[in-house]
Amino acid sequence: MAATRLVTLTTDFGSSDHFVGVMRGVILGVNPAAQIVDLCNAVNSFDVLDGALTIGQAYSYFPVDTIHLVVVDPGVGTSRRPLLVRTDKHYFIAPDNGVLSLVMEKEERVLVRHITATHYFREPVSSTFHGRDIFAPCAGWLSKGVEPEKFGPEITDYVRFALPKPKVISERAIKGAVLKVDKFGNLVTNLTPENAPELFTAGARVKIRIGQNEVAAIRGTYAEGQAGELFAVLNSMGLLEIACNRGSAAHVAKAGRGADVLVEF
Amino acid sequence: MAATRLVTLTTDFGSSDHFVGVMRGVILGVNPAAQIVDLCNAVNSFDVLDGALTIGQAYSYFPVDTIHLVVVDPGVGTSRRPLLVRTDKHYFIAPDNGVLSLVMEKEERVLVRHITATHYFREPVSSTFHGRDIFAPCAGWLSKGVEPEKFGPEITDYVRFALPKPKVISERAIKGAVLKVDKFGNLVTNLTPENAPELFTAGARVKIRIGQNEVAAIRGTYAEGQAGELFAVLNSMGLLEIACNRGSAAHVAKAGRGADVLVEF
Amino acid sequence: MAATRLVTLTTDFGSSDHFVGVMRGVILGVNPAAQIVDLCNAVNSFDVLDGALTIGQAYSYFPVDTIHLVVVDPGVGTSRRPLLVRTDKHYFIAPDNGVLSLVMEKEERVLVRHITATHYFREPVSSTFHGRDIFAPCAGWLSKGVEPEKFGPEITDYVRFALPKPKVISERAIKGAVLKVDKFGNLVTNLTPENAPELFTAGARVKIRIGQNEVAAIRGTYAEGQAGELFAVLNSMGLLEIACNRGSAAHVAKAGRGADVLVEF
Repeated sequence: MAATRLVTLTTDFGSSDHFVGVMRGVILGVNPAAQIVDLCNAVNSFDVLDGALTIGQAYSYFPVDTIHLVVVDPGVGTSRRPLLVRTDKHYFIAPDNGVLSLVMEKEERVLVRHITATHYFREPVSSTFHGRDIFAPCAGWLSKGVEPEKFGPEITDYVRFALPKPKVISERAIKGAVLKVDKFGNLVTNLTPENAPELFTAGARVKIRIGQNEVAAIRGTYAEGQAGELFAVLNSMGLLEIACNRGSAAHVAKAGRGADVLVEF
Repeated sequence: MAATRLVTLTTDFGSSDHFVGVMRGVILGVNPAAQIVDLCNAVNSFDVLDGALTIGQAYSYFPVDTIHLVVVDPGVGTSRRPLLVRTDKHYFIAPDNGVLSLVMEKEERVLVRHITATHYFREPVSSTFHGRDIFAPCAGWLSKGVEPEKFGPEITDYVRFALPKPKVISERAIKGAVLKVDKFGNLVTNLTPENAPELFTAGARVKIRIGQNEVAAIRGTYAEGQAGELFAVLNSMGLLEIACNRGSAAHVAKAGRGADVLVEF
Repeated sequence: MAATRLVTLTTDFGSSDHFVGVMRGVILGVNPAAQIVDLCNAVNSFDVLDGALTIGQAYSYFPVDTIHLVVVDPGVGTSRRPLLVRTDKHYFIAPDNGVLSLVMEKEERVLVRHITATHYFREPVSSTFHGRDIFAPCAGWLSKGVEPEKFGPEITDYVRFALPKPKVISERAIKGAVLKVDKFGNLVTNLTPENAPELFTAGARVKIRIGQNEVAAIRGTYAEGQAGELFAVLNSMGLLEIACNRGSAAHVAKAGRGADVLVEF
C-alpha cells in the first residue's frame, strides 16, 4: 500500500462552519500522509438523494484505490450502520442510508461491510457528529493500510434506493425531472441517451417542455445558444441539461429541482 | 522537526476572493513542504468573537504541533501586535485582538510572543493585508523549523476577552444566548453541562424558551425530533443546541445569533 | 524538475457542485505527486474579465514554476483554443479568450502555445467540460515534467483584451470604475498611483465621488475610518479601494461592480 493515499470528502456540512476542517484534522491525526481532497461539501442539507447523485457522478474520475468519504447523515446517532464499501476500483465510507445508491447502480461488483470495529473510532463517540468520530477516523485508518476486513463483517441487507427515472406517459411522450440546478443555473435532468434515445437520434423531431417554456433545440455546446434562449445539451455526466448561453436556465424557466421535463416525439 | 508540517487556516476572508489562495501561495513559497488545511474561512466579517469561537471549538482535533493561522483582523495596519502562541500541543499565529481568547480559556499553559522579527515578513508590508505579508510568511517559517523564540519576545499583556456566559437571573432560571447558527440552521448556545447542570440531569424538569417558542424536549440525536418540532441536543462541541430534525431551527424559531435562550427549572 | 509541483485553480465553477472536485481527481490521476491549491473558484459565472482580474492580481504570490490552471470558459466546446503560457516565473493553462490579459499586461516576456497534443486529453472529450477533459489533464502532465513544447506550437495571435482604465474627463477630473466588490463589501477600483497620481500625492486636495456619495478621505488603514463613513485606501493589490470600517462600503454607497468613481482635483 502506498505511503500517500487519496481521501475525498463529499458532505452536506458546507463551508461556513468548522465541521469539514475538523474532519480533515482527525484524518491527518490518524494518518499524516493522507492526501485529502474536497469532492463537494455543498450537498443539500439532510438530502441523501442529492448526496447520492453527487458522489455517483464524480467518483469515477479519481485514481484507483481512492477512498471516498461520504457524510450526508440525517440519522446520525441512531442505529443506522456505518459502512465500508469496496467496488472494483474505489473505497467508500458512508452511513447506511442509500447515499451510495448511484455508485451501486453503476458498479457490477460491490462488497459492503458493516463497520463494527469500534477501536478505530474516536473516543468518546458523540451522537451528533459521526463524521468526526466514526467516518473520518475509519478513513484515516483505511488510508494507513488497515485491511478492509478488519473493519467489520460483510453484509448484503444494506439500504439502497432507486434513483428517479423518467416515466413513459404515452407512446410518444416521456416525463423526466430536474435532478439539480448547478452553479450556473443549468437544469440537470434524469434524461439520458439510454432512457430517452429519441432525444439523441440525429434528425429526430422532439419537443421538450419545462413549466410554461418550450426548449428551442438540442445543441452541441453552450455557446451555440441564442441570447436568452432555453436549449438542451448532453452534459458532461451524460445527462440532458437545460441551459442558457451565459445565463441561468433556472431563472429563465422559473424552474428548479424536481420540476417536470416533458418530452414529446 | 518533521519535513511536513500542518498549517490550518481560520479567517474571515471567505472564498469569493483570492485572499486565502494568495496566503496559501505565500506559505508554500516559504516552505514548499507545508501542508495547508482550511479549518474555516467563513468567520463573520470583522467578527473577532466569532473567530474566537471557531478556532476555540476546533483546534484540539488537529495533530500535535499543528500551526493554526487565525486571521480575523479588523485592526490590520494599526499598532495591534502580531502574536505567536504556544500551548501544550499546538501553535497559533494571530493578531493580538482576543481572537485566541477561547483557546486561552481552554489551555492551562500558554506562552505568548510578540512577533517582532520583521525579516520574516514579506516586503513591502501593506497596511491592509497582513494575512499575506506577516501572518502567512511567519507560519511558513515556523513550519520550516524556525524556533519560536526567534520570532520575538514573550509578553503577558496580550488582549483576552471573556466569552459570553449564561446569566443566573433567579434561583430557578438562567439566560443563555445563541453563539452562532450553523449551516443546518441549528442554534448553538453557550449553555453547557458545566454552567447549566440542571439541563443535563436525568429526569430533570426544565423549560427552554427561545423567542416566542418553547423547546419540546432535550433529545439524544437529531433524528429523534418530531417533524417541525424545536428540540435541544448536547452538540459535538459540548454545547446545548436548539435543532429541528431535517429542518432549520433558526427558521422555525425565527431566531439568530445573539438571541436569548431562557432556561427555567 | 521537482517531484512535487504546485497547480493552482482559478475557475467560475463555484463550490456547490462536483466540478472542481472532479478536476482535482483528474490532475491527481495523471500526477499523484501534484499539489493542488485553490486560488479562487468563485469567479463570476461566464465572466472572463472577472477571471482576468482574479488571476492577474494573485499569481505573482506563488512560488516559481507554479502552474496556474484558469478555467472561465463560456466558449467551451467551440473552436476557441486551449493555451499553455509561459511567463518569466510561472505557467498558465487556460482557454484562449483573454482570461490571461492582465497577466500578459504585467509580464514582459510571454510565450504562448496552442495546445494541440490531443493525446494528453482525457478521452472522450466532452463538449461542455474541458476543465475536466483538456485543461486538468494537461496541467497534470505538465506538472509531471512533460516539456512545454510537447503540448503544441507557439502562436502570437492569441486573444488579449485591454483592461478597463480610468478616463480623463477634464483637466481636473478622471473617471474610474469599480472592478469588483470583495467579501467585506469593499469597492475595488481601477485607480492606481500610476494612472491617478494626484490621489496619492501628500497634501493633495481631491474629491472622490461614487454615486450620490462623497468619500471622506484617503486613509492609511481600514481601522482609521470613522463609523459608517466611506473612505478610500490603497489596497493590497495597489488599487484604490472604497471601504467602510467594519462595514460594507457596497451597502453604504449602494454601489457595485461597474459603478463610476469620479475623482476631481
